[in-house]
Amino acid sequence: MTSSQSEVDAVREQIAAAGVDLRRLRSIEGHADEASSALARLLQLKARYEELTGDEYRKKRVRSPAAPAADPRRQKQPRLPRAAADETPPDPMACPPPAASFPAWAAREYFRFEVVHRSAKPGSRARVGRLVTPHGVVDTPAFVPVGTNAALKALDERHAREAGVQLTFCNTYHLLVHPGPRVVGAAGGLHKYMNHEGALITDSGGFQVFSLAQPSEDDGPELKSRNKRAATEAKEGGAKSGGSLVRVSERGAVFRSYHDGRTIELTPESSVEAQKLLGADIIIPLDELPPYHITPERLHASVRLSHRWMARSLRTHLANPQQQAMYAVVHGGTDQTMRRESAEYLASLPFDGFAVGGSLGKDRAEMLELLAFLMPLLPEDKPNHLLGIADPESCAAVVPFGVDTMDSCNPTRIARHGLLLSTAGAVKIKQLKYEADFGPIDPECETVPHSRAYLHHLFKQHEPLFMTLASQHNLIFMNKLMADIRRRILADEI
Amino acid sequence: MTSSQSEVDAVREQIAAAGVDLRRLRSIEGHADEASSALARLLQLKARYEELTGDEYRKKRVRSPAAPAADPRRQKQPRLPRAAADETPPDPMACPPPAASFPAWAAREYFRFEVVHRSAKPGSRARVGRLVTPHGVVDTPAFVPVGTNAALKALDERHAREAGVQLTFCNTYHLLVHPGPRVVGAAGGLHKYMNHEGALITDSGGFQVFSLAQPSEDDGPELKSRNKRAATEAKEGGAKSGGSLVRVSERGAVFRSYHDGRTIELTPESSVEAQKLLGADIIIPLDELPPYHITPERLHASVRLSHRWMARSLRTHLANPQQQAMYAVVHGGTDQTMRRESAEYLASLPFDGFAVGGSLGKDRAEMLELLAFLMPLLPEDKPNHLLGIADPESCAAVVPFGVDTMDSCNPTRIARHGLLLSTAGAVKIKQLKYEADFGPIDPECETVPHSRAYLHHLFKQHEPLFMTLASQHNLIFMNKLMADIRRRILADEI
Repeated sequence: MTSSQSEVDAVREQIAAAGVDLRRLRSIEGHADEASSALARLLQLKARYEELTGDEYRKKRVRSPAAPAADPRRQKQPRLPRAAADETPPDPMACPPPAASFPAWAAREYFRFEVVHRSAKPGSRARVGRLVTPHGVVDTPAFVPVGTNAALKALDERHAREAGVQLTFCNTYHLLVHPGPRVVGAAGGLHKYMNHEGALITDSGGFQVFSLAQPSEDDGPELKSRNKRAATEAKEGGAKSGGSLVRVSERGAVFRSYHDGRTIELTPESSVEAQKLLGADIIIPLDELPPYHITPERLHASVRLSHRWMARSLRTHLANPQQQAMYAVVHGGTDQTMRRESAEYLASLPFDGFAVGGSLGKDRAEMLELLAFLMPLLPEDKPNHLLGIADPESCAAVVPFGVDTMDSCNPTRIARHGLLLSTAGAVKIKQLKYEADFGPIDPECETVPHSRAYLHHLFKQHEPLFMTLASQHNLIFMNKLMADIRRRILADEI
Repeated sequence: MTSSQSEVDAVREQIAAAGVDLRRLRSIEGHADEASSALARLLQLKARYEELTGDEYRKKRVRSPAAPAADPRRQKQPRLPRAAADETPPDPMACPPPAASFPAWAAREYFRFEVVHRSAKPGSRARVGRLVTPHGVVDTPAFVPVGTNAALKALDERHAREAGVQLTFCNTYHLLVHPGPRVVGAAGGLHKYMNHEGALITDSGGFQVFSLAQPSEDDGPELKSRNKRAATEAKEGGAKSGGSLVRVSERGAVFRSYHDGRTIELTPESSVEAQKLLGADIIIPLDELPPYHITPERLHASVRLSHRWMARSLRTHLANPQQQAMYAVVHGGTDQTMRRESAEYLASLPFDGFAVGGSLGKDRAEMLELLAFLMPLLPEDKPNHLLGIADPESCAAVVPFGVDTMDSCNPTRIARHGLLLSTAGAVKIKQLKYEADFGPIDPECETVPHSRAYLHHLFKQHEPLFMTLASQHNLIFMNKLMADIRRRILADEI
């Protein structure tokens, strides 16, 4: 390496570090001056780079999960080949491989689902079940809280356990970005990394990639609200701006990290490989999340792409099941023909369960209409999961269709923003009327041993303890709600 | 009330509310646009006020702790009379009332101090004791963490109890500002308000008033660093700018609330009254915190003022002891003559213990020199407390002088900023070298069941859980350190 090349590399590293500093400073209140200095330094470094190389500075691309054992910024990564160079332009409607090309599904001793009771209430498909995983039994129907960054935001493991959490959802996308699946793998997997005893589920990482893509005119209300939610998620994860989708091809999706601007490639194989390193009890194959308002042709092409990706994912997974279960993601938006094709194709493959994904419609009514049609198409003996929808009203509404588990960051997110769930509706704890209200948050549902007045004070004073107590309250509330729902199914009331 | 007067009042209220909004928005990252709108609205409202009244808008003053049962902004408060109008100009060197004007100190069944062992090590005054309070026994020497706003920032009661916290320090100043002592009183006192089982100590509120005052040329390094610390404290309490001292007179101090700009008066009587409502086990009388670099004459006048204030505080307290103990604050800066006068005068009054306050010198060496001189002047049978100094090194250094308890927000504050205490010095957890370090935070001292790698990840991702785990780690570390110190005193090693 010439000394000038080594200087170029040094400047690149300094630029990367200065960029991280700048984003960090911009994200911290009251550091405007330091951020200005950091920006000035970054611009100086970029000018120096241009002086040395004659080229404008550009970030290097990194493949994932070939993510870094130690320092991502120091590893040299090959450039991604252009789609045109390494792939025959694919037929967007190409059929995915048939069931016959897979082994038949076989019961696994480490993961099984037992239906304990099917509701006898006319018209109800509600059921009470037990999902046995390597990390404990999940009584279903169950609410699944989201611990985006390998943490339930403000709750530690014991808080979560005591709140009745049975299964926790972590986001592969965020963990790809930081600390990287190899670090978690080196720790012995997510359970050890988080010191978590209960069951875990990870997604493919695709949802955030697609939902953090620039919103398009095509997006329906659902994806728009998901965009907003995912952007908030990314931001609460410490970034100032969401990641962005760079390119989708047959091979996979390329996106830009919100953490340090690297581009990361996610393929069906790399997503499974990442989830093997993470080691959750339930994993999910890569799928495409198309916008809401697209033509039936484009939707169909998207469903086929997702099927091809999921078949590749399943093959990769089955080569090394590693005591993990894989759920397929049923797609097709609100189009019944395509939902049926998706359910039938995916049910023909040896998946361990089925998640309902893709666009669920523009509102709850449309979602329920979809579930009424779709749920009977899923195998009755396998567990199913509703992706991303689990506010208290939705939980109660979807259970009669036979949903077993459902995840949402809603209960903990609204907690952090001062909305406490109660049997009489949400309590906006910032309201002055709670200043001297020494009663419990919800008189009907005993949760944390603190008064509304104290939580009001902590919220108004921005005390971090507020987030802990409020999140714990909302999770206890949700899990008591689900326990009550299970009781009512057993009594054939739901 | 004329309709124009009621409009003026309405505009005043709107201005106050808009001001609160503006400060809130400015304190939240990413709300610059909303803050600009709020500022525009505030300026419009002020213009409207001027139009209606012909006068520039000024905030009204409110007396404390005549603080508000419900909404402080809606209560009308009398203007404070000017000092000249209601007071004979006082003699700054006037002697405080003699001991004979107080009842003799008598043992109290609800609060007592027992010396368990005095170190036999030559030259050591270290002692192991037991402080029996209405809310539990405190084994001394003890570290006392600071829960500024009636909360240990990111730790709940159980986290604190399990970390070995015996006595917690809350700041009357912050509680005056929010939620106000009347609210806490209505809850049944701080213990009930916080749902706290352990012993509590509150200060007079004076420290923050004086340390948040505009730093003056006279301030020595100690007060300057205290200013910085207290300003951070106020800021972490949710405000953008610290409060400020408006006026000191014989009667007390007037300051401006960082929360809503109200001016609040703190007198020896009002501070005790507030602390009666808060109901901590140990309370502290109002004192003046003078700057470091002042003439001996001014320092002497300040000590005398503090003595007069403390005598008034003690009288107010003794009229209604309410199972509380009161510690005097020994003053005199680094001047031995004045420290002696202060210790002798205060020891002659029926206080239950003694706190070492005022300027402790410009560095640790000067502080230790002061303690070597001062501690033997304090009664041996009463407990003592070192105010505001309790980092691990200082704790170890001050114990041989006979210090029983010492408070500091340092261990929890540095935790939140990523500094984890360990037997080998502090661990800067943000360093990349910890990314894949799966060992415990301190291999010599078992605390939280999480690895450095996981804490590194949480810190880098701004996960709120980091604050909880890091704070808990540092508190466990401190309390184990103190337990070890007690063990070594019992073995006459310290």
